[in-house]
Amino acid sequence: MMVRDRSLLADAGTSAGLLAVRRHNLALVMSHLRAAGARSRATIAAETGLNKATVSSLVAELVERGLVAEGETERGAVGRPSQHVDLRGGTFFTVGAEVNLGYLSVVALDVRSEVVAERWVPLEAGPLDADVALPRLATLVLEIVASLTAAGGELVGVTVAVPGLVERSTGRVLRAPNLGWAQTPVVEQMRALLDDPACPLLLDNEANLAARAEVDAPGRADVADLVLLTGVVGVGAGVVAAGRLLRGVRGFAGEVGHLQVDPGGRRCGCGRRGCWETVAGLDALLSGAADADDPVRDPTLDLVARLATLIARAEAGDRRTLDALDRTADWLGTGAGFLVNLFDPGLLVLGGYFALLGPWLAEPLRRSLPDRVFAPQPAGCRVESSALGFTAAARGGALEALTWIFDDPTAVTSPRAGAVPAGAPA
Amino acid sequence: MMVRDRSLLADAGTSAGLLAVRRHNLALVMSHLRAAGARSRATIAAETGLNKATVSSLVAELVERGLVAEGETERGAVGRPSQHVDLRGGTFFTVGAEVNLGYLSVVALDVRSEVVAERWVPLEAGPLDADVALPRLATLVLEIVASLTAAGGELVGVTVAVPGLVERSTGRVLRAPNLGWAQTPVVEQMRALLDDPACPLLLDNEANLAARAEVDAPGRADVADLVLLTGVVGVGAGVVAAGRLLRGVRGFAGEVGHLQVDPGGRRCGCGRRGCWETVAGLDALLSGAADADDPVRDPTLDLVARLATLIARAEAGDRRTLDALDRTADWLGTGAGFLVNLFDPGLLVLGGYFALLGPWLAEPLRRSLPDRVFAPQPAGCRVESSALGFTAAARGGALEALTWIFDDPTAVTSPRAGAVPAGAPA
Repeated sequence: MMVRDRSLLADAGTSAGLLAVRRHNLALVMSHLRAAGARSRATIAAETGLNKATVSSLVAELVERGLVAEGETERGAVGRPSQHVDLRGGTFFTVGAEVNLGYLSVVALDVRSEVVAERWVPLEAGPLDADVALPRLATLVLEIVASLTAAGGELVGVTVAVPGLVERSTGRVLRAPNLGWAQTPVVEQMRALLDDPACPLLLDNEANLAARAEVDAPGRADVADLVLLTGVVGVGAGVVAAGRLLRGVRGFAGEVGHLQVDPGGRRCGCGRRGCWETVAGLDALLSGAADADDPVRDPTLDLVARLATLIARAEAGDRRTLDALDRTADWLGTGAGFLVNLFDPGLLVLGGYFALLGPWLAEPLRRSLPDRVFAPQPAGCRVESSALGFTAAARGGALEALTWIFDDPTAVTSPRAGAVPAGAPA
Repeated sequence: MMVRDRSLLADAGTSAGLLAVRRHNLALVMSHLRAAGARSRATIAAETGLNKATVSSLVAELVERGLVAEGETERGAVGRPSQHVDLRGGTFFTVGAEVNLGYLSVVALDVRSEVVAERWVPLEAGPLDADVALPRLATLVLEIVASLTAAGGELVGVTVAVPGLVERSTGRVLRAPNLGWAQTPVVEQMRALLDDPACPLLLDNEANLAARAEVDAPGRADVADLVLLTGVVGVGAGVVAAGRLLRGVRGFAGEVGHLQVDPGGRRCGCGRRGCWETVAGLDALLSGAADADDPVRDPTLDLVARLATLIARAEAGDRRTLDALDRTADWLGTGAGFLVNLFDPGLLVLGGYFALLGPWLAEPLRRSLPDRVFAPQPAGCRVESSALGFTAAARGGALEALTWIFDDPTAVTSPRAGAVPAGAPA
């Protein structure tokens, strides 16, 4: 790391080196505005250590590219109005698009990480051929891109989220047994469907992307160690350790759904028995809570509507529903105990269906963790239900795609940037 | 990160800033020599991007401080002899000191990470009062310090390793049930025993330190994702992810020994039932392999000698011993499967007693992992037995203490450095 930084400086005398330094400094200003919010050029200079003339030149370039805007902002009763710089929404946007068992979810974010469009569509909650699912997903993405582009926006990149083992370097899903996918070239198929050869397109695991979104959620600025559990039919985990997503050597870290916690138990989609998702996943809950012909167990019906029925029964005190929720909470605790022992996170976020059923799952989990975790509890791990629910992975995908801009602001230029008056930041 | 680097540059005009840059550059040269080996000033300049005059000045200061040495080295048949710079052994040293169930281990390393002294002493393999164990450990440390100091060495720092939950910020062991320790102020006690108020003294978990040593072991230069399993009476894990030790938010990550894998099973030292160490730890193996009155189960006898007896029986084909080893390998596989699913390491290292019994444990583990890991196996995780055995944690502790020098070479100056001729690097 030190050697790399040093090389950057050593190259500064060459023109390639000057460009690298310039790019580094543009990225620094963008990241600083993202983390710290709108502020004056003078404040940016003071906080980054860059001199004021450099900051002015960098800000001018970023304005030109359509990435930041300048505007007057009142500083308070006694302060004079001062010219503040802020990230500029409304031009560039990124898209995250998730296929899961039971739904498609698409979220578009602008450079300010604000949602500028979203779609959520229920699907049958069972295996679904990629040749069926991906065209439907692409249609949603194209609808959003068309409407945002018509309003003057420009697409920067798309991240696709899938519940399964992903090989990011080739854009393939290696294994997603619940979807019935194996060796599926998702990026290649999506590229053909989106018909945009130049658009950056990435594939990632949905739990990893959901964890990315949770770290970025309001009130989490100080959270550097977090485990996000996603539960649909499968169960997955995204782990952030010391501020970075834990990926492992092949990108397969966090494969919590197939920990064998019940060796003599039910057959799993992966072919083995007793995987954690066979006891903590949605199917286990539903088969405990209702007979086979109960509509809540009908995978062709809307997942959220089925969960709403279940919630209504639980609120009415239905014993069978509550007992099934207790058993789910107990199995949830088994795996959560493993995760807290191994990762020692400051925060465990319940995502997916666990979040919707949070009122029946989070509190029993909090109560049982002390018995399952070796570390002393006074300094224990918080448990929260996600506010993002089934949209977390798509949101995380759009956030991930924003790194194309934040890592290298020179990668984009808006041809319309000059034509749009640089208004005051919102 | 970027902001911090930038601040460093912005401060370069002030004298405090100049000192910071100088320290940074001294550390850069030290780290580069450590990673890349002996080389000329010109090569150091080319590889780090520093100019030659700066490198000469930095090397001169490091020679003065006794941290590096210059000497002529033949470059080959056709090359002229050239003046090479290398880290200098023989002056500064650090010490790692471990208390575990069954032994005390102390290792001293010089700046070249070479072992300059070590002691390994068997202990009774049961709970042992800190007031008994720490004075014995301190005596070993003091013996080593005395002999190395008499030979012209200077102690830089000591790291103490303990199998248990450690609070590094206060130097306390919070919980080490196998040792019978709780809220034990280890650093405070060791400081009094070593009677050296100025000596940097750290406490860490033994599995973390062992993982540190394994990453540094020969042939591991390219390994950035590794899980080290230590097994004595307890079982622990040290996890290195993307090149960094995974600590978690409170420093308790990797607490694998108390995962509840056998809920109806044996009572654990922690008070619960069926923790992984009750089935994969040494006591489970020995109680399966031998009757209660068999000397291999006598915790007052030398641990290594007892294991040697067990190995002799296994080599002779003793059925009961081999069956017990099979069961241990199977339980080892259960937990190892969890770890590989969750951390996706490139390498799983068997340490502690697992390493000594590697011939009976590693191969069954390799065979069973594909059935326990969700990710496809062609790209699977390697399994190796540690070559460091019961000395890994002490070695890792000494390595950890070396960071005091490598992070800030200005922290040390040898008053004897001028008097010792700067010989050719070995």
